[in-house]
Amino acid sequence: MSEQYKAFSEHLHKIGVVGSIGGLLGWDNEVYKPEKAMGIRSEQNAFISGLIHEEFTSADFVKLVQALLEDKSLSKEQSINVTKVNEDLIKQTKFNKEFIQKQSVIISEAFGKWHAAKTQNNFSLFEESLEKVVALCKESAEILGYEEHPYDALLDMYEPGMTTKKLKVIFANVKEQLVPYYNSLLAKKQVEASFLHNKFEKQKQWDISIEILKQMGYDFGAGRQDYAPHPFSIGMHPTDVRITTRVDEHNLSELIWSAIHEGGHALYEQGLDAEYFGQPQGVAASLGIHESQSRLWENNVGRSLSYWKANYHLMQNAFPETFGKVELMDFYKAINKVEPGFIRTNADEISYHLHVLIRFEIEVALMEDKIKVKDLPEFWNAKYKEYLAVDVPSNTLGVLQDVHWSHGSLGYFPTYSIGSFYAAQLFSHAEKQIPQLKEKIEKGELSELLSWLRTNIHVKGKLYTSEEICEQVTGEKLNFDYFMNYVKAKYDGIYK
Amino acid sequence: MSEQYKAFSEHLHKIGVVGSIGGLLGWDNEVYKPEKAMGIRSEQNAFISGLIHEEFTSADFVKLVQALLEDKSLSKEQSINVTKVNEDLIKQTKFNKEFIQKQSVIISEAFGKWHAAKTQNNFSLFEESLEKVVALCKESAEILGYEEHPYDALLDMYEPGMTTKKLKVIFANVKEQLVPYYNSLLAKKQVEASFLHNKFEKQKQWDISIEILKQMGYDFGAGRQDYAPHPFSIGMHPTDVRITTRVDEHNLSELIWSAIHEGGHALYEQGLDAEYFGQPQGVAASLGIHESQSRLWENNVGRSLSYWKANYHLMQNAFPETFGKVELMDFYKAINKVEPGFIRTNADEISYHLHVLIRFEIEVALMEDKIKVKDLPEFWNAKYKEYLAVDVPSNTLGVLQDVHWSHGSLGYFPTYSIGSFYAAQLFSHAEKQIPQLKEKIEKGELSELLSWLRTNIHVKGKLYTSEEICEQVTGEKLNFDYFMNYVKAKYDGIYK
Repeated sequence: MSEQYKAFSEHLHKIGVVGSIGGLLGWDNEVYKPEKAMGIRSEQNAFISGLIHEEFTSADFVKLVQALLEDKSLSKEQSINVTKVNEDLIKQTKFNKEFIQKQSVIISEAFGKWHAAKTQNNFSLFEESLEKVVALCKESAEILGYEEHPYDALLDMYEPGMTTKKLKVIFANVKEQLVPYYNSLLAKKQVEASFLHNKFEKQKQWDISIEILKQMGYDFGAGRQDYAPHPFSIGMHPTDVRITTRVDEHNLSELIWSAIHEGGHALYEQGLDAEYFGQPQGVAASLGIHESQSRLWENNVGRSLSYWKANYHLMQNAFPETFGKVELMDFYKAINKVEPGFIRTNADEISYHLHVLIRFEIEVALMEDKIKVKDLPEFWNAKYKEYLAVDVPSNTLGVLQDVHWSHGSLGYFPTYSIGSFYAAQLFSHAEKQIPQLKEKIEKGELSELLSWLRTNIHVKGKLYTSEEICEQVTGEKLNFDYFMNYVKAKYDGIYK
Repeated sequence: MSEQYKAFSEHLHKIGVVGSIGGLLGWDNEVYKPEKAMGIRSEQNAFISGLIHEEFTSADFVKLVQALLEDKSLSKEQSINVTKVNEDLIKQTKFNKEFIQKQSVIISEAFGKWHAAKTQNNFSLFEESLEKVVALCKESAEILGYEEHPYDALLDMYEPGMTTKKLKVIFANVKEQLVPYYNSLLAKKQVEASFLHNKFEKQKQWDISIEILKQMGYDFGAGRQDYAPHPFSIGMHPTDVRITTRVDEHNLSELIWSAIHEGGHALYEQGLDAEYFGQPQGVAASLGIHESQSRLWENNVGRSLSYWKANYHLMQNAFPETFGKVELMDFYKAINKVEPGFIRTNADEISYHLHVLIRFEIEVALMEDKIKVKDLPEFWNAKYKEYLAVDVPSNTLGVLQDVHWSHGSLGYFPTYSIGSFYAAQLFSHAEKQIPQLKEKIEKGELSELLSWLRTNIHVKGKLYTSEEICEQVTGEKLNFDYFMNYVKAKYDGIYK
């Protein structure tokens, strides 16, 4: 390794260390921080993020990156690392101090306004702030630049390489294929799932989640699970990747599939190559690919019949009073029941994407000036009626349900769907490439699947875009057919 | 406030923020860190401590301090803050890089050697390393400088203002008064305490500890209690002060008095003035004063009859099978039983200081070249026979029991005793100054005692030395008589 490249990787490693400290602050914040420590925690966070920015954009480092861009002796992977860092640098230096300050004022105000509006079910309290957020996003897009569509610039922050054009094709499929298919399921005789709301002792649920995470290959020597109000996973370093979940005595789904979902995220983080810690090669490719890992484990594996053939005994042993009387097949059907609702986070595997579709349509329309912020509640409710056949009871449970817009995170929601669609495509290839995968899952043998994900996705880090990774593994770009075929095969069986 | 002083306080505040981040890393390390994260945690710690050193000794800051030393417009308290910071700066700049590197090599080697020696009960494995540690401490003392005794320089790091001469007087009292008194108690009819080793459900013990901490005034909105292998308290900021304890189903003392002890430390940290966060005025005065707070709560309050008049019902309600049959007075006697042992950390309130006395004598003798490292085991065992009348069964349980020497922490042990002696002196004055304190404690009303400690000690931070604080509050310097009188009054009653 050249001296120059060594200096480059060491500097990024150092920034990685600082970032990992910020990670611990973030974890503690959600899990154990005493409430009065809010003030000092803000100062700690501000210090860490300021330091990261300072170190990343320092004149010496920028000079080093410029020199390395011209260095012909680099390996292919080294070149990619340098190029990606340079792209980030260009992005970071595009925003001047004035813009960042304005952004910070608008965002912090927006959060408060959103919170008040949601609590009081009064959209008008948030309206003006949201208008400012949208204007800010448009300004961001202009500053960042784009080729075809301003929304591309926003998407690129979360899913490098993704464009509005590509997403419009994908979500057209969602609208044309998934919406009618979903409505056809709703018209069928419903499956019985009320027993999932019996009483399930919390500690026993917790013990099952630990069991299940171990079976997935989650390394408790390099991580842990704690309770938190909102489930999340956080990778500070491949040797310290923590997950959180919550538990509801009367809703089995709350803990179990959350744990599997977060476990999927965590396996990705534990599988990153520590040798490249801090470099693009050592971080996750994109939010979409991250979500593909969590969704693949949660749904393609964790809601499959094969998976529960291996694991249903855990439920039956822990909760005989409920599951002693429920056949495996009925359990399987229940955990896959489709049920239209108005909250994305509680949605079933199919309608989830109808929620995201609505967000996508709204965000694009906002960026294209085809809708005004003040008309959002009406638009929102009409879309929920059209796609999900539900009447949204209030703005609190409707257009105000999610915090993300108040954070200024337009362009973020689509990654939730992209993740599931990638998951279906990846899993379909895993099934082809791993001999007898289904039989292995039925026996609780998941290590080959994990190895396959490690080799094909995790160790690559961010060397490639999600699209490139997808092509390398499956021979084609993101193709919605995989998801549609997966869903049809599964739900035709359940709702036959 | 002058612009200069504002810059000074802001810089120290910033260093305080960085230190508080280091605090969280330290807390997590002991409580929740996954084992494989050891490597990244070392890097995180090294980064934070390097940054603190860098910021504290930065040329700009040093210049600012020099300028402020000449600033006649400062208030008295501002002047003290500047002077104390300057003293720290002088100390920190005395050690050159070469010495710090040598120190780091010796200490990290010593820990490994000590651990092997303790595990294998083989002092010779540690001997050479300990010789190096002692030589290092002597070199430190010479570098730091002292007026009378090289040990003074070491003491000053933990207990500013304390000297060997003063300690020799105090420990002469321990030897002449406490040792014979202790042996006179051992000759009396022993109290019955075996019931403290019945079975006590862990969760119930935990619940009592929470109850007790709340009653003390420990603010769970600005702190929390967790389990850890070694009990400790850590103050990151007055709004985030956490404690840890451990629990033993067959030893009630493990959790309860540990919680009270750590709670005492934590109340001090919660009571520091956040306005001066990072400045001497915002940090604890010394280890001795810190220990005076924990010991005052643990022993003067937490092992008093008055205290258990208020709280014995907690024990009786939680553990009726044991305490239903035990009278309050017998409980009180049991928790104060004197029992000679060879482990300091498990010692009763009196013999504790006999352990420290031995450490003190050894450390002084080492600094005065009156004893050789190789003779320590023999010396140690003879002293235990002489003062505590016990036969030390092995070096593992004897001279190798504690980790501190391997850390190079000579001069640290005496603060354990000083703390108790200050506690007795302070508590005696609290009893005089707070009307009907005893009756209040008997009713579980502890808030006035806490207020008294807040006003007289906590809010002063490190503006004054422990000796100055003691004089301000009690009108005289540390006086061993208070402890001796406290002990006699209490134990004459118990062993009458």
